[in-house]
Amino acid sequence: MEQFSIGVDLGGTNLRSAVYTPDGGLQDKRSIRTRLEDGPNAVAEDICGMIAEARSSHPGQSCVGVCVGAPGPLELPIGRFHIPPNLPGWDGFTLSEVLQRNLDISFYIDNDANIAALAECHLGSGKQLGLDSLNMLTLGTGVGHGIIQDGRILHGANGLAGEAGHVAVYPDGEPCNCGNRGCLEMYATAKTFHREATRRAVAGAPGIRAMLERSPEASPSDLYALATTGDVDARAIFADSGRAIGICIASLINTMNPALVVVAGGISDAWPLLSPTIFGELESRSYIYRLTKPGSRFKRNTIVRRAELGPDAGLIGAALYPFVYGERQ
Amino acid sequence: MEQFSIGVDLGGTNLRSAVYTPDGGLQDKRSIRTRLEDGPNAVAEDICGMIAEARSSHPGQSCVGVCVGAPGPLELPIGRFHIPPNLPGWDGFTLSEVLQRNLDISFYIDNDANIAALAECHLGSGKQLGLDSLNMLTLGTGVGHGIIQDGRILHGANGLAGEAGHVAVYPDGEPCNCGNRGCLEMYATAKTFHREATRRAVAGAPGIRAMLERSPEASPSDLYALATTGDVDARAIFADSGRAIGICIASLINTMNPALVVVAGGISDAWPLLSPTIFGELESRSYIYRLTKPGSRFKRNTIVRRAELGPDAGLIGAALYPFVYGERQ
Repeated sequence: MEQFSIGVDLGGTNLRSAVYTPDGGLQDKRSIRTRLEDGPNAVAEDICGMIAEARSSHPGQSCVGVCVGAPGPLELPIGRFHIPPNLPGWDGFTLSEVLQRNLDISFYIDNDANIAALAECHLGSGKQLGLDSLNMLTLGTGVGHGIIQDGRILHGANGLAGEAGHVAVYPDGEPCNCGNRGCLEMYATAKTFHREATRRAVAGAPGIRAMLERSPEASPSDLYALATTGDVDARAIFADSGRAIGICIASLINTMNPALVVVAGGISDAWPLLSPTIFGELESRSYIYRLTKPGSRFKRNTIVRRAELGPDAGLIGAALYPFVYGERQ
Repeated sequence: MEQFSIGVDLGGTNLRSAVYTPDGGLQDKRSIRTRLEDGPNAVAEDICGMIAEARSSHPGQSCVGVCVGAPGPLELPIGRFHIPPNLPGWDGFTLSEVLQRNLDISFYIDNDANIAALAECHLGSGKQLGLDSLNMLTLGTGVGHGIIQDGRILHGANGLAGEAGHVAVYPDGEPCNCGNRGCLEMYATAKTFHREATRRAVAGAPGIRAMLERSPEASPSDLYALATTGDVDARAIFADSGRAIGICIASLINTMNPALVVVAGGISDAWPLLSPTIFGELESRSYIYRLTKPGSRFKRNTIVRRAELGPDAGLIGAALYPFVYGERQ
């Protein structure tokens, strides 16, 4: 009997599900709106409904399990939220209790960044390079971070490991909502680029000023387009961001000596402009990187590159999860 | 038949060995000078000689294995040194090859900071608190860092994990020999306190100036003694150091969510003066620490405290190692 699993990706905007089979990969993708206004129990009902639908569309096949990926902070293994910024009203909600009552198959709950990293390891660049460990940074509206060690997620004591987005790259830098200053998240997300573009426009950067006059809500990709025309101010913003990303990755390498660090998310589309300063910082700030980089005398090299999987990494990882974690139980 | 293991701690000054039994603990401690001037092969011979002596002093008992702890950078599992600052002339030397030729029992080689953390986890504060994971920082002439996850050392891709001493706490700060700037090692080691004392004396701090006039080579403990008399300048040096340590620990917590972070080494004797700023930084820079600190609603708390084991942690860990790693083989 063919086996399948079900992945659910709970986001602040959309609730997505998909089915996964080892032979067929990801299939049956569905998406509905996350009705946050109706509270966590209503959304949990929707999650159970999507799971029931996915199961009923695979009659005669065996469901090995379900995994729900959600934004954090998410206490694990209990599956309880703690003031999650992207799920207002969910503080203290224990998703696992609702799933326990409504599902008669084994299920997993995990942080969406962890799950995306799991997918990237097992089906993306990790698989491609034959590696079973990596650190993944997803740069988008926020910074997601997942750590995979020997093919499994490094959860830490409470499931909260993987918050490199709140590592202080500049300890006296921009204040962050988390209470810290100079977090990576203040230098490598969509907000960063808008903030820095505005600053530079006010200070006189003509190209950026013209761009913001045309479209005040200019996105990082608008700024990237401007930078690729050679605009020095726009290029400087990406160089600065790459510097912050490089400082953070250097710290990750110096702390955990990962075989592979991958950078994903919308911001990583600017890799050609980010990577020179990223690697510049790695060269000067991580002797481990210098010793072990590709071409060095070390048996295993430290590789830093863009992720292979795109925006579906979270959904793929959730769907894959029961196969990875079911095997060894 | 009673089982015993042998631990060897290779330092730049002394070569120490001890025997360990689960019932009797550490015993038969020996120490000789590390004859660096004769080169790595001569020292490796001494290591094998100490092991042979330890074995012959336990006739009729079964030796489960040997572990040698050494300063890094040390590539693992191959056991090769890469420009180790405390073992001049050892670059490229593969200790495991010499041990392989000369020993007829199973042996392990590991980084001394990893090994000390293993001891602290299994026989120190980890054991005391019932935890099998921790991060340990040893603050002395340098910064040692070891990461224990589920009772085992987190080695990373090349055995180089655990270099929080070279995490940039101030990215534009003091230049470090490693090529980075503002490394924790520049703010939390013996050199730090002498440098800062000199700076403050030159700038006019009367108490510190008097101390340096009496003893120009004043140690961190001399400065600590002055600080405990209420000298504001001396106290400020410890507060600043605690701030750097706190920034680094906040990054470790935000990255790995360890259940326990322990601070060891000679500098940690100043804990009463370091800890207020350490915890101040943790409160503001780590939402994970705030959420999970002792007394919080989280099931598992994040505990930051001084280590239980003293300067013998490295020797204890080396001796314990074959028992920890032999069990699961």
